[in-house]
Parts: sequence; C-alpha cells; structure tokens
Amino acid sequence: MHLSEITHPNQLHGLSIRQLQQIARQIREKHLQTVATSGGHLGPGLGVVELTLGLYQTLDLDRDKVVWDVGHQAYPHKIITGRYDNFHTLRQKDGIAGYLKRCESKFDHFGAGHASTSISAALGMAVARDLKGDNFKVVAVIGDGALTGGMALEAINHAGHLPKTNLLVVLNDNEMSISPNVGAIPRYLNKMRLSPPMQFLTDNLEEQFKHIPFVGESLSPELERVKEGMKRLAVPKVGAVFEELGFTYMGPVDGHNLEELIATFKQAHKMPGPVLVHVATVKGKGYEIAEKDQVGYHAQSPFNLATGKAIPSSKPKPPAYSKVFTHTLVKLAENNPKIVGITAAMATGTGLDKLASKLPQQYIDVGIAEQHAVTLAAGMACEGMRPVAAIYSTFLQRGYDQIVHDVCIQNLPVFFCLDRAGIVGADGPTHQGMYDIAYLRCLPNIVLMAPKDEAELQQMVVTGVNYTDGPIAMRYPRGNGYGVPLMEEGWEALPIGKGEILRQGDDVLMVGYGSMVYPTMQVAQILSEHGIEATVINARFAKPLDTELILPLAKQIGRVVTLEEGCLMGGFGSAIAESLLDNNVVVPVMRIGVPDVLVDHATPDQSMAELGLTPPQIAEKVRKSFSPQLSAVGG
Amino acid sequence: MHLSEITHPNQLHGLSIRQLQQIARQIREKHLQTVATSGGHLGPGLGVVELTLGLYQTLDLDRDKVVWDVGHQAYPHKIITGRYDNFHTLRQKDGIAGYLKRCESKFDHFGAGHASTSISAALGMAVARDLKGDNFKVVAVIGDGALTGGMALEAINHAGHLPKTNLLVVLNDNEMSISPNVGAIPRYLNKMRLSPPMQFLTDNLEEQFKHIPFVGESLSPELERVKEGMKRLAVPKVGAVFEELGFTYMGPVDGHNLEELIATFKQAHKMPGPVLVHVATVKGKGYEIAEKDQVGYHAQSPFNLATGKAIPSSKPKPPAYSKVFTHTLVKLAENNPKIVGITAAMATGTGLDKLASKLPQQYIDVGIAEQHAVTLAAGMACEGMRPVAAIYSTFLQRGYDQIVHDVCIQNLPVFFCLDRAGIVGADGPTHQGMYDIAYLRCLPNIVLMAPKDEAELQQMVVTGVNYTDGPIAMRYPRGNGYGVPLMEEGWEALPIGKGEILRQGDDVLMVGYGSMVYPTMQVAQILSEHGIEATVINARFAKPLDTELILPLAKQIGRVVTLEEGCLMGGFGSAIAESLLDNNVVVPVMRIGVPDVLVDHATPDQSMAELGLTPPQIAEKVRKSFSPQLSAVGG
Repeated sequence: MHLSEITHPNQLHGLSIRQLQQIARQIREKHLQTVATSGGHLGPGLGVVELTLGLYQTLDLDRDKVVWDVGHQAYPHKIITGRYDNFHTLRQKDGIAGYLKRCESKFDHFGAGHASTSISAALGMAVARDLKGDNFKVVAVIGDGALTGGMALEAINHAGHLPKTNLLVVLNDNEMSISPNVGAIPRYLNKMRLSPPMQFLTDNLEEQFKHIPFVGESLSPELERVKEGMKRLAVPKVGAVFEELGFTYMGPVDGHNLEELIATFKQAHKMPGPVLVHVATVKGKGYEIAEKDQVGYHAQSPFNLATGKAIPSSKPKPPAYSKVFTHTLVKLAENNPKIVGITAAMATGTGLDKLASKLPQQYIDVGIAEQHAVTLAAGMACEGMRPVAAIYSTFLQRGYDQIVHDVCIQNLPVFFCLDRAGIVGADGPTHQGMYDIAYLRCLPNIVLMAPKDEAELQQMVVTGVNYTDGPIAMRYPRGNGYGVPLMEEGWEALPIGKGEILRQGDDVLMVGYGSMVYPTMQVAQILSEHGIEATVINARFAKPLDTELILPLAKQIGRVVTLEEGCLMGGFGSAIAESLLDNNVVVPVMRIGVPDVLVDHATPDQSMAELGLTPPQIAEKVRKSFSPQLSAVGG
Repeated sequence: MHLSEITHPNQLHGLSIRQLQQIARQIREKHLQTVATSGGHLGPGLGVVELTLGLYQTLDLDRDKVVWDVGHQAYPHKIITGRYDNFHTLRQKDGIAGYLKRCESKFDHFGAGHASTSISAALGMAVARDLKGDNFKVVAVIGDGALTGGMALEAINHAGHLPKTNLLVVLNDNEMSISPNVGAIPRYLNKMRLSPPMQFLTDNLEEQFKHIPFVGESLSPELERVKEGMKRLAVPKVGAVFEELGFTYMGPVDGHNLEELIATFKQAHKMPGPVLVHVATVKGKGYEIAEKDQVGYHAQSPFNLATGKAIPSSKPKPPAYSKVFTHTLVKLAENNPKIVGITAAMATGTGLDKLASKLPQQYIDVGIAEQHAVTLAAGMACEGMRPVAAIYSTFLQRGYDQIVHDVCIQNLPVFFCLDRAGIVGADGPTHQGMYDIAYLRCLPNIVLMAPKDEAELQQMVVTGVNYTDGPIAMRYPRGNGYGVPLMEEGWEALPIGKGEILRQGDDVLMVGYGSMVYPTMQVAQILSEHGIEATVINARFAKPLDTELILPLAKQIGRVVTLEEGCLMGGFGSAIAESLLDNNVVVPVMRIGVPDVLVDHATPDQSMAELGLTPPQIAEKVRKSFSPQLSAVGG
C-alpha cells in the first residue's frame, strides 16, 4: 500500500509492522519534500512519524479523539488523515494550515498553535464523554518542552485527581522545545529517559537478592517482606513524579520502534484513569542534517534537500527587526550590567540567542512559561535591574494577568519587547500579533510605543532601557526593515509620548503607528496625486498619545485617518477617537486597521491585500470619503 | 514586651520562645478584633502567626526579602511591621490595605492579591541579587492551594534548575485554598503531611532489619549494601517530587511549634540552592469557631467574636447577583444535563457551591488554575456540552490566552460568567474587575453582555446557556441587586445584540451598560429636573452593539453619553464611539466610566464618588456640557 492511498487513518489498522515502516518512510519523504519547497516545521514532525502511526493503529479515529499539542508536530497526522494530496499547499494561502484547525479536518479534534494546551482540552473531552455515558478514547500528545508550561501542569494536577476518567497522555520527549529545554522538569525527564524501564529494575533486584549470603534462592518470609518493600520503594522511582500525581507511568519507550510503541499503547488503553506514556523521540529523525542541528531545523524556510542549505532569496533583504533589536540590546547590555534579556523558550525567534552567546550572565531562558517570565521580570525590577522581556505579541497573551497584577499595578519598570506584532503570515490565526495594543492600552501606568522602521527601533530600545518610571512596551513586526541606515552607538532616548510630523498638508490628518507609518506616507503620496494633501504624523506612542501635537491639527484640518497593524476594536485608532471626543474635537475619524475577523495563513502581502490594507486600497478609501456622492450614506 | 512596642520586625530577634508565644497570642487578639470589627480575611492570617514570627526571627528584614503569596495571609506580617497602630483601619478607605502593597510599607517587598505569583517574584529578586553580587536572603511563602496554579509550577521548574541560586520557599500547607483543595498536588502534599519526617522512616528501617533472622544486629556487608540501597530509595519518598525537581525538601514541620519552625528555618538558610520547607498549619488556628468552619471563616464580614455570628446589616438587602446567578443556573442545569459549571477554586465566591451540592456531576472545581479551566471548558464544548466558566473578571485575566487561542479562534460555545465586574470595594486594585470589557471586546467571535439588574441577569443566564454559535460572556457586579421581582422559571433568551429603550427625550442620548443602567436612569431624572430630557438605552450587549437602535438615535439627537463600570480605555464607550465614527455619525460623545487610574480599596460607594460616578456627579458633568461657557474650551 502506498501512502497516497491512505485517506482515512483507520486504514492503518490492518497493516503489519513492515508495512507501517514503509508508510513511515513515505511520510518522511513527503514531509521533507514539502517543507523543503514551502518552508515550515521540520524537526517536530519527523520525530513523531512512528509515534503517530503506532498510536493510530491502536485507535478508531472515527470515534477516538487525539489532541496534538502546538500542532507543529502534526504534519504526519495531516498526511494520513486525508490531506496527502493537498499537502504541497502547506502554509500557503487557502492551502493546508501549518497548525491544526478544527475547520480543516474532522480529524483535527482541537486546534493549537500555542504550547501546553492539549491536556486541558483532552481532559475536557474525556470529562464530557463520561458525562454523556460514551466510551471513546481521548489522547493528548504533548512535547516535553510544552510540559514546562504552567497550564499543562494545572491539567495534570486535575487529571491526576480523577482516577475514574480514562485519559492517555503521550509525552513526546525529544529533549527540546525549539531550543534545548531548560528547567527541572526536562532534567527530570532526561533522567527518566536514561533509566531502564521499571521491570528491569525489579528483575535486577531479584538478582541482587540471590547473591546475598544466607539468603540465596529461598528467602525467609521476613526477608521476602523486605524485598517486597524494596520493590514497592523501587517501582515508583522511574516516573515517580507522575505516579505521585496520580498517573500510571509507562516508559520510556523507543519512539522509533513501532512494535514497542504499539504494544505500549495497547497496554495503556487497557489501564483505567490517567496514563502517561513516555516516548523518547529524536527531533528531525530520518534526516541526518536535521538530527544534527535540531535548533536550526525546528522550522525552515525553503531549502535544498541534499545540502540542507536554505535557498537564498532572489534579492538581498534588509536586516530583520529581530536582528536589529538584539544587536542594539547587546550593545547596550555590554555597558549596562543591569540589563537582562528574558525569553520564554524563543531564544532564536526573538534573537536573544545573540545575547546568550555574548553575555550569558545577562540572559535568561525560562522555558515555555510566559507567566513566570513576566513576574520574574517584575521581581528583578524590584531589585533595580532592567529586565527586558522579549515575548511575541501573541505569546504575551499568556502572561496577561502577570502584566496587570505584578507589573502595571505595582508600576514596575519592565521593558516588554513584542516581536511579531501585527500580521505574521504563514503561521496563521493562532500566531497573529493582533490584540496587544488593545489588551495593553487599557492598563494603567504602561507606556506603549512602536517604531516606524529599524532605525527608530534602535532608538526605542534605548528609550525602553532608559525608562524607569514604570512599565513600557514596544511592538514591532515580523520580517525585515526598510534598509535605512543603522547606528552602531550614540542612540538617544525618545521623549515619552511625543510623535513627529513627517509631512504637511491641509486636507486630511493621517496618524500612523509603527509598521503603518511608511504605508501612511505612501498613501499620502497617492492622495497627493489626486489633489488631496495630507499631514502625516508618526505617532510613535499609542500611550500616552501626543495630544498636544494631534488635537490642534485634528481641529484645524477637520478630518482624521488613523492607521495601525492591529485589531481596530480598542486599538490605536480607538485611542485617537477617544482622545478627540474627550477633548470636544468632533471631526470624522476613519480608522484603518484589522477588522474584527480572524486572519488566516497566507503571505503577509496577501493578508494585507485581503484586509484592504495596501496603500492604494487605503488611499482609495480615504479618497472616497472626500466625495460624499461615492460613499453610501452612513456607510 | 507588648506587641504594640514592635515597630520593626527585627525587634523579634532577641525574644525567647516564651516571649514569641506571648506575641503570637497578642497578634491573634489584634487580628481577631480587627476582622470582627472591619471584616476581612480571618483564617489565613490566624494560621501563619507562628510561621511569621519564626521566619522573621531568622531574617534581617532590613536586607532580606519576603514575598507573601496572595497577601491575605499577611495580616500578622502587617501587624509586626509597623502597622499595629493603624491596623484598625484595615480595608477602609485610606487605611491599611487587605493585601500587600509596595507603596504601603518598605516591608511589603512584593504586592499580591492573586495567587501563585510569589515564587516567580522571589526568584526574580534572587537572580537579581546574585547578578549584583549581593547576599541577602529571599523567601517566598506560598499556600498549598496556590501551588496548583500553573505559574507557581513554572517557577519551581525554573528555580529547580538553578542550583546556585539560594531561594527559600515556605509552603504554608493548610490543606485549603478558600475551599478544600482539589487536585493531585494537594493530595500528594496531604500524603506528605501524614508521613513521619524522614529520619523516622530510616530509623524504622534499621529496626526492621534487626528482626530479620540470620541478620540480627550485625549485618553482612552485602546486606548492609542492600540496607543502604533501601535507605537511598526510602529517603526521597517524603518530598520526592520536590527533590526530583531540584529542591531540597524539609518537613513536614508543625506550623504552630515555634521551636521547630525556627530550627528548621535556620537550617534551611544554611542550605545552598532552592529549598522548600513544608509547614503544616491549621487555618483559623487559635479561634475555635474558625478552625471548625475553615471555608466559612476564610474571610468574614464584621462578626461577633464570642459567637462567630455575622453582625446583621441594619436593613435587609436584596439578593446578591452571585446568588441569583447560581439559583438560575441550578434551575436550568436540572433540566439540561449538558450544563456543567466550572470554577477555579472559587466555589463559594461564585456561588457554584450550590450547584455542587445539588448537581455534583455537573460541577467541576479545578483548583486555582484559570488557564486550565478555560481550555477544559473548550474541550467540553467540542463534545457538545454547555460549559459555564464562572470566573471573576479579575481572575479571568489569568486565562486570557486560553480565551483567545482555545475558545475565540475556534469559536467554541463556552459561557463565561464574570462575577465581580467593576468596582469591588475593600479588596482594592488587584481585585477590581476593570478591564474585561476592553480585553474581551477586541477578540473575534465573542458576544459580550451585562444585565441591568438581577432579573435581567436571569434572562442572560438563559441567553448564555442557549447560545451555541460561539463564546459568550456575561459580566455582573459584586454585591446586591435592586430587589426587583425574580422569576422561578419561564425565562426567555434575549435576542443577541439587541438593547432596549428605557426612556425617551430629545436633548441627549444616554447609553448605559450593565450596572450603570439604573444610575443612567437616575442621571436622566436629575437632568429632567434641569430641563434636559434624555433618551436612555439599556445596551445589554457591548458586542455586538445594537447599532440599528443606537445610530439613528445618536444622529437624530446629536449628543451621546455612554456609561459603564469599567475602564474607559477601549471599553464600552469606546465601542460606541468607534461605531458612530465608522458610520459617519460625527457627534459629541461623553464617555463616563473609570479613568486610567488604579482604584484603591474603599467602599464601592466611596470609590464611585471619588471617580465622579454617582448620578448627581454625572448629571452635573452632562449638564455642564450643555452650557459651553461653563466648560473649559477643549477640556
């Protein structure tokens, strides 16, 4: 049977180990070819090919539910659940998503793009099943990295308390999240990986007793009791933590041995209550280049399969924002030992790996643990340090209460650096950095800023590091800057809450924020070609707003357009509208930004065009508002 | 020495056990008297009197830092850190806060009102200390309930990975959060509490060996090795989980035995790296009535010390919103087995304890674990259940990413019931339910509603339970309703996104939301007495807004006032302003709500007056806007 014939995972049921191994090879091939062409996650999927096949041979996917944590490990799942034919469209607009989506397939039982959610979701399904009197199986597959996320531990605490609720947690232990894991839990798992399975331990014990003099093969009843006691003591050693938390622990299992996997899963399905199967896998398995560089091949842009080298883009690109961010931060940190960069398992993504290699003392990776990252930073700020928490916009949602309760209420000077703010492209809805302006703007004491380009980002890094009156956050987009000249030193902090005028015109006031400032200038240019002259302000700060600059101009010009790369509801334009109305400047305000919809995976350019956010589209919209006959009344 | 003479905790240093016991008695007296008079937290503080004194005798509070989790267990700390004289002002406006506040005392090293934050904050301080080359001690005191919160586990994972970072975690194990704890971790702690300390175990082992025939007192070398092996196996049994996670575990210690506490803390301070001291305490210790009813006496309104009975309020009050909420929910759940109420350790606060006692199958307490609560609900919704997540507005911040990522993006029908939305009174800034409208409004797919009174709350509970198109949230205030007639059955769901007109007038359109609808009517009445006639709308929904109702009226009347009990930035009024401007209805909008400040503890009435939110104050503000000569230009 060829992989392409598998359109339903239950087709795996009858296959022999040998046949499954063939399918495994074909999945790896498909997986590698697709990612080499389209880009995407590589190592996670390659590591779970056998785990997926072994698990699915023991399940009835028409009834049973599998919740894959994060979803980037689920490419093999996608390939064998009816998406083989379309898999080449991976991460492309209208193609197969890079993460799981309930609306994409009935086999995607729960969507995910963020880590650590699977046990909670699976437990919810298991509890619901029992309440309904149904009896299907529920499985969560979670990585060892994701297990350091607090919510996974909350779920284990709960599941371990429900001995009658059958739930299988498969721990996909590849010793990595994106980077090597940090923390006591991964270290413990590693110890367990190295331990022999428990039957070996007790067998060995038997052996040990045989060699005790006077005891030999026949033990006295008392010593038999002692031996039993020792077994009891010894048994929980491997997996003790999980056993103490109410789980039946099974493992470690070789995650690339189908026979062992299938036997273990079959056994696990027979056990009552919560069961954890510990599977040791190798990230990137089967592609030697990826096995050897597991960080580098976690995810990849298109690359040459033979060499593993990225296919260079057609033209050289300006430096990425992340790169300029870290470069600047490292320079500042070299002269200021109080600066400490904090990441939650995103060392390469945020660029903080550069800080780690240059100034390891001033770098902390807390693992997948955004809540802890934020409050750790708050604690450091209490002691006069300058913590710089570099967390993607979408992931900072995971530390929201900590921002409110530990940072903003106490007005502690933590500098939040929100990478991937705005449209993120191929990663899709779970990763869009859409809500940060809205969810941060409502909090007291915090300053919000966004640079118009990579040079201003440098200034804002300095601004953030120098600002000690309270919390401050900078958002910046995924991707590359504009290629403007960068400075190596001599940056000066920007005045807090002050914007700048970039262009003057009498017909309309356009206020851009962050990544939308350059597009705003382009819109102004197009408008000018149509005889409409705009004043353009680079707001720089969404909080506090530069009302001294904006209000008189708005009053004078009498027509305002705001532009932002974020949700319109409660966002930057909303802040401008509030400010105008609060100050009795009652003028039309057109807010340009992301409407109240989910933005699907696509290239950023495709998304922007679909949302009507390209300069020509915006210019057209503004121009129409000047010709009332063109615009519907009240519309 | 009398307690009143202690103005600095270092004064405890020279005191004998006997003297400390005297001080302990005096603290209990002061604590009890104050809470009996002012109301406040009772059980938590009474349980840690000896823990506090013992710990502080071993610390130099001018240098060492103590981070108290939640803060409601820190009354004894407050009493002996210079606040004895003012302690009678507890939880009163401008008096001593009910939680810890850095601005209240230099000994409040980290503020807290929410649980599970202390280890992260303390670790941040410890890491900062080491980077600075300083050498003070850092201690986190955390309850066993708070240990089920994911961020505490994230912090333990991190701390256990830093063997060179000295940190003392004191586990105040009273077997309770507010209610008895649920979960595998508390069960494990309980097992540990019941275990004898480890030296007893190994002593016992020695004893056991003595009685093995042929072995007796002198062991052969081989059996000696076996015995040692057994000891090694036995030793980590108590505290094994913490030991595996990199902590040195000490305990359990009797939390009311000062000698034992002091000896243990002294020993703990000498140990390198992270140390956990497990202290077994009794909630309410020393006040028999509270010891016997630990849930009831977690916190108390003013009560009679002799009888423990609450002092009845002068006049009978209408039922609390929480009570009406559960009463209605229970009625509905009786006829719909799909309804399941979920609480995160707030059974009594949310009123779900009533559901628990009537329909235990349809009730889940997940412990202090809001993230897990939200995604568990999402998982249940996948299986067609009607999960009702009853979580205070302020605590739902802790599950924010789960609302975004697991519920809203997947458009799953979870019903969020946000109690304590708006001003909460004596609990102060950490508990104000101020941001939910702003932080939820920006998310796609969610419906937001708020009832004007307890009868409308009943209708909204029905609405939420019946709505299956996606997530829906209802916010309602702390405290009592208006005494309007309630229905026992026959409720009908409200049409989604539809408001109602309560009053008509041509001069101003006032749109109230939730708890501000009745005050809006009062404002309209006052305005009417001044010749200004208002149309009043009860919005019912903040999302979607009833634009069909609001826009034409706003256009026609030409002047809008919005009223909400929540932050103005990005809140309900902001939604109205956005909607008007988006639809070219360019009219003045006055937004009444909570400005961008922290609202301190006080009675709700005092807070509302201070914020200018009483009906006469609002009426005055609206009235002034009608006389331009009275209002400052542009102000």
